[in-house]
Formats: sequence, C-alpha cells, structure tokens
Amino acid sequence: MSAPNMTAGLFDRVALIGIGLIGSSLARVLRRDSPQTRIVACARRPETLAAVRRLDLADETTDDPAVAVAGANLVVIATPLSAYAEIGRRIAPALRDGAIVTDVGSVKGAAIAALQPELPDRVHFVPGHPVAGTEHSGPEAGFAELFDKRWCILTPLPHTAPEAVAKVTALWERAGMRVATMAADHHDKVLAVTSHLPHLIAYTIVGTATELGEDLQSEVVAFSAGGFRDFTRIAASDPVMWRDIFLANREAVLELLQRFSEDLTALQRAIRRGEGDTLHKWFTHTRAIRRSIIEADQA
Amino acid sequence: MSAPNMTAGLFDRVALIGIGLIGSSLARVLRRDSPQTRIVACARRPETLAAVRRLDLADETTDDPAVAVAGANLVVIATPLSAYAEIGRRIAPALRDGAIVTDVGSVKGAAIAALQPELPDRVHFVPGHPVAGTEHSGPEAGFAELFDKRWCILTPLPHTAPEAVAKVTALWERAGMRVATMAADHHDKVLAVTSHLPHLIAYTIVGTATELGEDLQSEVVAFSAGGFRDFTRIAASDPVMWRDIFLANREAVLELLQRFSEDLTALQRAIRRGEGDTLHKWFTHTRAIRRSIIEADQA
Repeated sequence: MSAPNMTAGLFDRVALIGIGLIGSSLARVLRRDSPQTRIVACARRPETLAAVRRLDLADETTDDPAVAVAGANLVVIATPLSAYAEIGRRIAPALRDGAIVTDVGSVKGAAIAALQPELPDRVHFVPGHPVAGTEHSGPEAGFAELFDKRWCILTPLPHTAPEAVAKVTALWERAGMRVATMAADHHDKVLAVTSHLPHLIAYTIVGTATELGEDLQSEVVAFSAGGFRDFTRIAASDPVMWRDIFLANREAVLELLQRFSEDLTALQRAIRRGEGDTLHKWFTHTRAIRRSIIEADQA
Repeated sequence: MSAPNMTAGLFDRVALIGIGLIGSSLARVLRRDSPQTRIVACARRPETLAAVRRLDLADETTDDPAVAVAGANLVVIATPLSAYAEIGRRIAPALRDGAIVTDVGSVKGAAIAALQPELPDRVHFVPGHPVAGTEHSGPEAGFAELFDKRWCILTPLPHTAPEAVAKVTALWERAGMRVATMAADHHDKVLAVTSHLPHLIAYTIVGTATELGEDLQSEVVAFSAGGFRDFTRIAASDPVMWRDIFLANREAVLELLQRFSEDLTALQRAIRRGEGDTLHKWFTHTRAIRRSIIEADQA
C-alpha cells in the first residue's frame, strides 16, 4: 500500500460518484476554495449530468464510475447506499494506486460491508458521514455552506492508514465541519437515535395524517403551523436514500423503535388515566435536553 | 344581552388573564398598534407581574382576575387550560355588561366546558385559538410578530352574537392573523393531528433518547443535527400547557395515537422484512404532502 498523495492542494483530482445534495455541495466547496482541483462528476441519469454542467460543478461528467475514478486522488461515493456494492465492483480495477476512497453514507456498517470487499489493498478506504442535509435533493439543492459547523463522523477501519484519515479530515474541516472519529457500529447506534428514528416517526405521522378524511386533510395542511409543519419537512426527505438507510441500519432502528413504542405506550396510558403528574414530569425532563443541545452549540 | 361596545379603537380597556408567550405577544401588538388601549395584566406569580411592568406591557397589573376584568371591554384568557374554570368563577361577577370574553386555549371543547357554565348571559363568549407559538414561554418570550400570517381559529357557540365574533376576528386580523371559524369539536380533531400528536411524539422520542446509556447520551446531544434537533425544539414546549392539552383533548389524541401506532407498526414490519418498496412508496407519498403545505403558504 503506497502513502496517500500529498499534493500542494489537498487533492488535485476528485471523483464524485453521485452528485445530489451532498456531492454537489462538496463540489461547490471545492470550486470556491480549491479552483485548481479537477472535479469529475458521475451520475446515472443524463438530466443530473446536464444540471452539473449547467451549474459548472465539474470539469468532466460521465455515467461510468470506472471512467470517473481514473487518475483521481480522491473518490467520494455519495449515492444511496443500495448502489455501493455495484459501484465498488466497477471502480475497483480503475482506481489509482494510493487513491483515497471515502463515502458520505448514513449507515457506516452497511457502507463498509458493501465497499470493503470490493476495494483493492492498494487504495485507502476512509468511511465517512458528513451529518448535514436538508429535505431537498439533487445537484440544484446543494450549497457550499451546507457543512458549516456541522459534524462529520469518520469510521476508519483498524488497518486504515492514519495519513488517509488525516486527509479526509482536512477535506471536511476545510468545508467548515467538525470531524469526529468512532467505530462504525457505534456511529450507527448514535445516528439511529439522532436521525433515523426521528425520520421514521416523521414519515409515519405525516402518512397517518393524510389517511384521515378528505375534509380533515385539507385543514391539516392549512393549519399545519404547529409541530406538524416540522414533521412534514423531515418527511419530505429523499425516499430512496431513506429506504436504504432503514434497511441498512435495520437492527439499531428496530431496537430503538421498541424502546420508543414502550415509552409512547406509557404516555398514552398516562393520558388515558388522566395522570397529569406523569406527563408534566416527562415534559420537564425533555425541556432540559433542549437546553443541553443549545449549550452544545448545535441548535 | 347588550351589543358589544363599538369604541373608536377596537377595545379601550383589555384585561389579559395570563401573560405568557401569547398574552405578552398580544400586549405588544396592542402597544404597537393601539397605544390608547388600556391594558390590565393578571398573573398569579409576582415575578411575572414584575416582568410585565419592567417590559411596560400593561398599564395595570394584578394577581386578582376579578380586579383585572372590572370595566374591561375585552377579556382574554391566556392561561393553561386547567386554570380556566377557577378563572371563570372568579371573573363572572366582575365582568362589565356586554364585555367580550375570549381565550387562546389549544383545546376548544374543554375551554368551552370550563368557561361557558361560569359566564353570565350579559357577556359575549368567543372561544378562540391563535395557532402560533414557539418553544419559549413567559412574558419575556413574546413578540408582536408572533401572529404574522398564522391562523386563528374561532369556535363560537350557536348563540354567540355575530358582532362579538366580528370584533374578536378584527383583533386577530389586526395582529396579522388569518381567521377561520369552525365547530369546537372539529377544531380539536384538526389540532390533534397538526399539533397535539406531533408534540406527544416529540416528547416521547426525546425522552427515549435520554434513557440510553450516559455515553450514548452525550453523543446524541453532540450529533443532534439530524431530525432529532427539530424534535428537541418541539419537546421543549411548556410542560404545564402541554399536560393540560393532552388531558383536555384526550379522546381525539388517543384515537389518533391508535392510528399512528398501527402505521408505525406497518413500517416497522416493512423494515424487519426488508420490504423496500413499501417504505419507498410511503416516503414518496409524504414528500408530496410537504409540497401541498408549501403551496398552502404555511411553510
């Protein structure tokens, strides 16, 4: 295994496999901060590549991952998780010696399971997850400030070269992120709580609301100013990406869902029995959590 | 029953019973748009009344609701629902003939059940609900723009004088709101969907997250950027107000919770069985709902 290529810029040739919200935001960061970096964008759909060209997000575009990665110092996989194994298979023979391969997938165990067996030893695989996003998707939705002050979690494998981890860390730090490192399975448990379960709940409740009578439904839309509005925003997130996340992080999500259901049943019981104290105590506790999040500067 | 008093201004003497987020925001609107209106603020806690005086939100302050309403053309009850019956009892003998009594409670059936039996026939009761708020509470948290472009729902009783409804409508419209009128029980069903269930779910999930191990918990706070952050904001809402809402709208909330649980179980089952199509279909549907809300100009 050769050492990562330390160029004057961080990377002089970057291949972005998948150029949706995250990929296109990273392209914008590179365009802004590192104009000498040559960007190759790869997407399956011709419309996506046309948008990339129109927005000048890449120097080259292709629908072939193997073509995209040829000569690249850095390969960033930013597609839905279900595409990873196939991409790994296709890029493996074309990867440059010493290239760094990273990804932005929301479930690290599954990302590693799909890619690691495909990638040759002569490249450095640094699994990563920039925890940033909006409910919008596609290359038009990206913006360079998306990563500002957000966390990026890297989950390197025991044998990953520290220099490769350092370079991916530098990439995301230059994009404005704070970078943390942890084991993949721990990442997947944390994200099940902070992101996956909240999304599943939001998807559920918005669906539940729309199954009500036609009459009620239009009013639900009109009067959505309460908590429901926040839920609809979350529940507008990309369907393919989220389908893949739930299937890929199945165990952690199901385990957490079980705890959530127990807690919801307890509150439901308190409402049915008119146990105001139970409710008040619970709600006071959750209010304190918000304060700690504000103090942690993530609000 | 005498006709509502049509003064040059809308109301020349307004009693605000309860002066938290909503009451103090209304006081700020009146201060801004109707400086000739005399405002009397009533609260139980001396600290609240001291804050009201410091912020110059009222011309008079008292902890006695009967003193507050004496001579008022308009009485606005803006306390948690559990205080309504007692307030109704105390203000009833002191109310001026033809006074309009309105409220801002989130459950209209319960608001009417608590107040209507207490109020004399010589006053006009116009139950109302300005659907606006933040997760903050208390007189310091209010601001005049809180109501801008939000909906206010009035739920007049069959015998409520149309002129009284018109005056309360004008009050909220001048505060920037769009005003709708519907039956109280219908309001309670709509709000169970748009506001009460989302709050209950947010309270639950934030509580569930904090029951995880100490280790995981600090990371959940640090990496809360995903959907969880939105939930913590909702789950920071006033505990007393929300305890009262769930107890007051028990039936509608429990009915909806049942549907929600069924839907969540269906999605849980799809995740467990790896049924990606079921998930994708559901998520695509909910994304469309968000679009209709944006089109309805509530986003």
